[in-house]
Amino acid sequence: MCGIFGIERHEDAANYAYLGLYALQHRGQESAGLVSEHQGRFHVERGMGYVADIFSKRALARLPGIRAIGHTRYSTTGSSIQSNAQPLVVNTSMGPLALVHNGNLVNAAELRAALEQDGSIFQTTSDTEVILHLMARNPRADVAEALIEALQHVRGAYSLLLLSRDCLIAARDPYGFRPLLLGSCEGAICFSSESCAFDLLEAQLVRDVELGEILVARDGDLESYRQSVEAPPARCIFEQVYFARPDSRVFGDGVSDSRLKMGATLAREAPAAADIVVPIPDSGLFAALGYARESGLPLEFGLIRNHYVGRTFIEPKQSIRHFGVKVKLNPIRELIEGRRVVLVDDSIVRGTTSPKIVKMVRDVGAAEVHLRIGCPPTIRPCHYGIDMPTAEELIASDHEIDEIRELVGADSLAYLSLDGMLECVSGPRQSYCTACWTGSYPVDISGVDRRQGVLFPIRTEEEA
Amino acid sequence: MCGIFGIERHEDAANYAYLGLYALQHRGQESAGLVSEHQGRFHVERGMGYVADIFSKRALARLPGIRAIGHTRYSTTGSSIQSNAQPLVVNTSMGPLALVHNGNLVNAAELRAALEQDGSIFQTTSDTEVILHLMARNPRADVAEALIEALQHVRGAYSLLLLSRDCLIAARDPYGFRPLLLGSCEGAICFSSESCAFDLLEAQLVRDVELGEILVARDGDLESYRQSVEAPPARCIFEQVYFARPDSRVFGDGVSDSRLKMGATLAREAPAAADIVVPIPDSGLFAALGYARESGLPLEFGLIRNHYVGRTFIEPKQSIRHFGVKVKLNPIRELIEGRRVVLVDDSIVRGTTSPKIVKMVRDVGAAEVHLRIGCPPTIRPCHYGIDMPTAEELIASDHEIDEIRELVGADSLAYLSLDGMLECVSGPRQSYCTACWTGSYPVDISGVDRRQGVLFPIRTEEEA
Amino acid sequence: MCGIFGIERHEDAANYAYLGLYALQHRGQESAGLVSEHQGRFHVERGMGYVADIFSKRALARLPGIRAIGHTRYSTTGSSIQSNAQPLVVNTSMGPLALVHNGNLVNAAELRAALEQDGSIFQTTSDTEVILHLMARNPRADVAEALIEALQHVRGAYSLLLLSRDCLIAARDPYGFRPLLLGSCEGAICFSSESCAFDLLEAQLVRDVELGEILVARDGDLESYRQSVEAPPARCIFEQVYFARPDSRVFGDGVSDSRLKMGATLAREAPAAADIVVPIPDSGLFAALGYARESGLPLEFGLIRNHYVGRTFIEPKQSIRHFGVKVKLNPIRELIEGRRVVLVDDSIVRGTTSPKIVKMVRDVGAAEVHLRIGCPPTIRPCHYGIDMPTAEELIASDHEIDEIRELVGADSLAYLSLDGMLECVSGPRQSYCTACWTGSYPVDISGVDRRQGVLFPIRTEEEA
Amino acid sequence: MCGIFGIERHEDAANYAYLGLYALQHRGQESAGLVSEHQGRFHVERGMGYVADIFSKRALARLPGIRAIGHTRYSTTGSSIQSNAQPLVVNTSMGPLALVHNGNLVNAAELRAALEQDGSIFQTTSDTEVILHLMARNPRADVAEALIEALQHVRGAYSLLLLSRDCLIAARDPYGFRPLLLGSCEGAICFSSESCAFDLLEAQLVRDVELGEILVARDGDLESYRQSVEAPPARCIFEQVYFARPDSRVFGDGVSDSRLKMGATLAREAPAAADIVVPIPDSGLFAALGYARESGLPLEFGLIRNHYVGRTFIEPKQSIRHFGVKVKLNPIRELIEGRRVVLVDDSIVRGTTSPKIVKMVRDVGAAEVHLRIGCPPTIRPCHYGIDMPTAEELIASDHEIDEIRELVGADSLAYLSLDGMLECVSGPRQSYCTACWTGSYPVDISGVDRRQGVLFPIRTEEEA
Repeated sequence: MCGIFGIERHEDAANYAYLGLYALQHRGQESAGLVSEHQGRFHVERGMGYVADIFSKRALARLPGIRAIGHTRYSTTGSSIQSNAQPLVVNTSMGPLALVHNGNLVNAAELRAALEQDGSIFQTTSDTEVILHLMARNPRADVAEALIEALQHVRGAYSLLLLSRDCLIAARDPYGFRPLLLGSCEGAICFSSESCAFDLLEAQLVRDVELGEILVARDGDLESYRQSVEAPPARCIFEQVYFARPDSRVFGDGVSDSRLKMGATLAREAPAAADIVVPIPDSGLFAALGYARESGLPLEFGLIRNHYVGRTFIEPKQSIRHFGVKVKLNPIRELIEGRRVVLVDDSIVRGTTSPKIVKMVRDVGAAEVHLRIGCPPTIRPCHYGIDMPTAEELIASDHEIDEIRELVGADSLAYLSLDGMLECVSGPRQSYCTACWTGSYPVDISGVDRRQGVLFPIRTEEEA
Repeated sequence: MCGIFGIERHEDAANYAYLGLYALQHRGQESAGLVSEHQGRFHVERGMGYVADIFSKRALARLPGIRAIGHTRYSTTGSSIQSNAQPLVVNTSMGPLALVHNGNLVNAAELRAALEQDGSIFQTTSDTEVILHLMARNPRADVAEALIEALQHVRGAYSLLLLSRDCLIAARDPYGFRPLLLGSCEGAICFSSESCAFDLLEAQLVRDVELGEILVARDGDLESYRQSVEAPPARCIFEQVYFARPDSRVFGDGVSDSRLKMGATLAREAPAAADIVVPIPDSGLFAALGYARESGLPLEFGLIRNHYVGRTFIEPKQSIRHFGVKVKLNPIRELIEGRRVVLVDDSIVRGTTSPKIVKMVRDVGAAEVHLRIGCPPTIRPCHYGIDMPTAEELIASDHEIDEIRELVGADSLAYLSLDGMLECVSGPRQSYCTACWTGSYPVDISGVDRRQGVLFPIRTEEEA
Repeated sequence: MCGIFGIERHEDAANYAYLGLYALQHRGQESAGLVSEHQGRFHVERGMGYVADIFSKRALARLPGIRAIGHTRYSTTGSSIQSNAQPLVVNTSMGPLALVHNGNLVNAAELRAALEQDGSIFQTTSDTEVILHLMARNPRADVAEALIEALQHVRGAYSLLLLSRDCLIAARDPYGFRPLLLGSCEGAICFSSESCAFDLLEAQLVRDVELGEILVARDGDLESYRQSVEAPPARCIFEQVYFARPDSRVFGDGVSDSRLKMGATLAREAPAAADIVVPIPDSGLFAALGYARESGLPLEFGLIRNHYVGRTFIEPKQSIRHFGVKVKLNPIRELIEGRRVVLVDDSIVRGTTSPKIVKMVRDVGAAEVHLRIGCPPTIRPCHYGIDMPTAEELIASDHEIDEIRELVGADSLAYLSLDGMLECVSGPRQSYCTACWTGSYPVDISGVDRRQGVLFPIRTEEEA
Repeated sequence: MCGIFGIERHEDAANYAYLGLYALQHRGQESAGLVSEHQGRFHVERGMGYVADIFSKRALARLPGIRAIGHTRYSTTGSSIQSNAQPLVVNTSMGPLALVHNGNLVNAAELRAALEQDGSIFQTTSDTEVILHLMARNPRADVAEALIEALQHVRGAYSLLLLSRDCLIAARDPYGFRPLLLGSCEGAICFSSESCAFDLLEAQLVRDVELGEILVARDGDLESYRQSVEAPPARCIFEQVYFARPDSRVFGDGVSDSRLKMGATLAREAPAAADIVVPIPDSGLFAALGYARESGLPLEFGLIRNHYVGRTFIEPKQSIRHFGVKVKLNPIRELIEGRRVVLVDDSIVRGTTSPKIVKMVRDVGAAEVHLRIGCPPTIRPCHYGIDMPTAEELIASDHEIDEIRELVGADSLAYLSLDGMLECVSGPRQSYCTACWTGSYPVDISGVDRRQGVLFPIRTEEEA
């Protein structure tokens, strides 16, 4: 899970890219990086943590130039290690190149092995490095051609931005797994994972980068190329369900609108004899509102979230008790006591948090607790760029709904149906990837290297 | 504005006090500190920033003992300076004492001058140091007596916790401006500014520390004393309106419940011919829900807040544009476009943010914007512990409502009436301080030193 | 052990005081602080570590004004704690005052107890705070008078600098234990613990601040006052032996010159049948040269010191071996092998390092090792400001010289005689304190509080 | 200029390598790094600054395994940038490889261009990366073979250590420019740039790694290979003159011994009618002692060095005066005044410091100043690994000795002759590189890329 942003021919390129990343912070909080190009030289700033903490005035002042790309990353490893941080910047016979990448290549391990056999050396485990090697192996006078050629060899999900000395290139895989949008900002061309970044910059959303499209922004012009590889669309509907910000537009739909509809559909599919509807903040907010409206039950903000929870929270050591989810959420007794409660959340993954929330709500006196989930049961992991546990860890992979209900301790449990969910988005239902709910993977995943992690954990003391 | 927490005779005293501060983080994000007592020695950890960032495992391990108090502070100065950080810890003829304090003494300047004339030396400008000097000047075998004696001399708002070698003392001024609650946690006595800290610790809320009461927790016993000074109650209703967390109980009322009522009353007092009700997050959430319910208008989450906004956000330097409130809030066009919108907020202080939000909502196509405020116009600053601008800076101090409406650019503007507000809380209306809305100060403020700030800005390089 | 520096009416006051501290770094490496006065306000910067690390350009820029004092401290505790860091800055009825202090008051505990009985509160354990309390208790229109009055009550060793809104005052105790020098720098008056700071600033050494003298620098004038307390001089000769920099002048003598004479006298008193003289760097350098010249034996730099040894060196954890002094010193086999070596050091304190050095020299093939020490056996601790172990830890307190020789493993061991040492300095022999060699303390030490340490270890996470 | 250390089959491998780097700190203070191998995985720790500051206990605990190599670096750029920090660690078809390197390849730019043409991507500008690419392009079952093959293609100076999953390899170029020594430590094989690291670890110096030799340490065995490239020896005599620690043995000679001889030879070649000999500390110490002995003039430590000078020293900003060398050195008037002084230094490079020292010595009253230099005039830069200014910046490149004398302000100036210098070391005179004094470069330098610096300055905020 990552957010990417790029801008071309803007005099405040790095500052605007910084703001873009800031708006995309929800797509990754572990690390972030920016690279700008100025008079043929590349300048890079990277760091661990939040965008607002990494980029000081001094850091931004060290990023001159009119072209910049940035990346904010969520890490699966949980460890604070810089060696995989993006943007990756290298020198090649075509000059310096920088790349940021959201997605996952299913044949990366195979490509890497082949490249190593041919004498390439690798410094990271990121798919990004594979793409740069492929380009370097087939250099062209125009880097766009080299990128197009390289992309013939990769399979999987990618939305990427490439910076060279003379252009900024955006590319999206032919399936269109991950979003990537084209915008216009004070005359400059820009790209973003989500439209909320354009809103902050008062940039106009022009359109989605199309499936399999390569867009080259150079000297104020924009050229569009198509990959020769054809593929059926497989847009990630989980972006709508959970991942994208509610104020973004993704794949042509407003995210808040999709979630309201999902909540309403859920209310029709799985009504509950209850008194109030309570969202699990913040992700269940819109689905709960949709549910409340459709069901006619009143919405109550019965769970309060502590927004100061950060990555550094220390669980007291000697304590015999585990504070867990209480640190993040607190129920309001006055609103809940004696009532039959419909709790609405976006999804259940491992099923470890839901029982605690249900118990918390019962502890302040809920008469009944009915859990409603705004998507179908998640039974398989994503291999196209969303970080998820293995199938074994997904509670719905080997439990029936009633078993899950019992495990979470709810009086009733219902998920939105697959059909119901697909009705809430505007594209044809075959145009979405539903692998995590159906196990039907649109791109063969047999070559996926399931070992996560970094090649060499290079740390500096500050990070450790 | 501050949050305080203390606990006595708990084997995890510092860890629990840390969690208490964590729940009170919304009452102050500039600095925090903890002190514990172990075998007659005091141990102190302080730092700038968020509670979760300041207290590492190592820091907490350096705080042994069964007694601890903590403080989280909001600073008026905006500068990161440690010299005024609480808890203040000193040695006296009664042994070491530590004090944390929420409030403001109106005669602190006068007392300080008198103490200096008598030869006292001051290292901070905090009221806390004044109280400790008064105690040291009149030492008693029982520190509780020394505190009671000292409090005879101070006037104003205080809720405080004092730690000595053998006890933990809580005291609240006779007016009861600021909240302070007594709780019970696994057999230990604890005190907190708000009940949400008890919820996190699964402690029971026993009762408010009463007006003018001094509670001494020693060896598991609890003794109650009364100040001889009598005063009419003057509880700060702004805690209900804005400051306290919605999941807390303050002065006997649930905060969320008070706000829901305020929103409903506002809807009755100031209805609007509109299509939707949109809360200004997060502070306007409950009032907006109350307004929507009472008015029958649908609630829409039309403004999304970026929860990653931190104190370190850097406004791009060279930029010609000012991003301001856009960094925090983003409107959702689909929900707003073409609609007549009721925007609900908790209060207007300077009036600098509201125009930007109104404009932002208009820019995405609102047909009309009706601004509704969940409290009366704020015309005077607080001198009892809530940090506010001077009267000149308060927009309502010298503007009629219609002028303000024009300045913020709304189609209509209405504030909740004073009577309406007071009906939403359970205490008698004379028992609340309404100074900031009426200018009627319950305690004489003629001696207040309006110069804010620190005596000597002592910095360490890390903070600078 | 501390170094102090002050300057008055210099437009670069803080910068020059910073450079002064820099030259005095050898007198204390644990922490340092500077305070400047500008238009009646005091500005303070303090930190842990080396002077050059604490004061960045930004830190120095925050210290405006034409008056400044600074302090560099060596701590006995070894822990990195800021609460005792100087300068101590307080507010009094006479306005703000800042004080830096080199020395030790023998009646500090008694004065502190009396002040606490009278209602004073203490935030540190430093003698400095006692002096400020005494001044505050007896305020005068002229702070110099208040200081003179306060100094009537203190006994012991002090060389101090006091900064007020309108002057800089230097004071030295009537015994003159610790050095303090008056200088002139580009027309400004300055004070320093040692003359090497004047050399760096190209300031002229004017004279010693005299015994019991109080010098008030105000508006470019210099007034001299005398304390009414009379006392025999008791200058610390250990400054000459070890503590001061060799390029300083202390008590009227050049330090390098004194050490050369001590080495020569030692050679006359305790010749050795040897081949070469090897200094133990860096402290034994001058004494070794003096010894070599007088004895006619060649000097060899047979021990090399690693100058990168810092306070943060980590002894490898799992290692079965202890690297100890090898980390600092390495012998050169070619220069030592087969030779009879005279090792010259300035002093032996605990006697823990000397055996390791002797062994190290034997291990590279020295035929014989004769240890020569440039002062008499150290049998008692200093109570006048030099940090030393307790008497029990001083190896010479309960061992005869021949026992020590056996413990250190030398073929012979000789110390400089007391008479011999006193002949090497120019003052009358009765004018020096020889307490650490004779146990004859010139100021009664019965009231000394031997418990070292801080009152409350206040830490910030960075320091921990 | 760099220091390298490696150890194989020692249970404390990383800790010992850390101590080795610690002893080699004088060879580079800008950054340092360590890599260890454990069960096929590599672990890396790197940082900016001093070895003792970078490697905390926690950092060392993150470096498990029985094989480790380390590097300490001096940077030409002066900027604190991590992107070129060694060890460089990569993955190849032969598994992970780590390399540390002291030296400079004269054909690196050419090799890099060719590799880029063949599709390699580069992340640094270091020669190290070129070698790893060459190896990866020609992989072998045994990495030693791949290294030997790769080294056929590089020309210039290198002493390097390579770590793989199963062995530690040391290699030295056929000219033997830079030192590299084989040692034995508690049964483990180790390598070091200088013998002083062995002394600290109580390791035995076995012998020099020979010219063109590749030594493979694997499973406790040691195999020696020879490069097919033959070359005349060209050992860097500047190591003896200045760079190596005086307690090291380099190229079979004790460094202190060489310097004593150079001083003595200089005294014979260039006597001075003077009263005292004063070393410029610390580099001129041994040459000065040699000069003093040979001339019969007394040695005086007339210049004192402040050993607390660090890289962070801040020159006061507003000051009109420049403190420059005074911050590091202070003359002692008592020792110099009225005397004719011979100042002895190891070398003159730019000629910017010497005039200040001569003036400083005159300012304290020297009657005459005769400057003597322990090597010939430096007229050309080194291209084999010692960081030097360009020829234009070398004062002796375009000034006659008498011009230099006038510029530095000395009464006389003399350099050691080339022949004199070569007599002071034990190898045949043709076996040393004298390029910086003669301009006769033993390896063709026409392909040297004189542009210094980094490819992309990748910074983290902490470093900036």
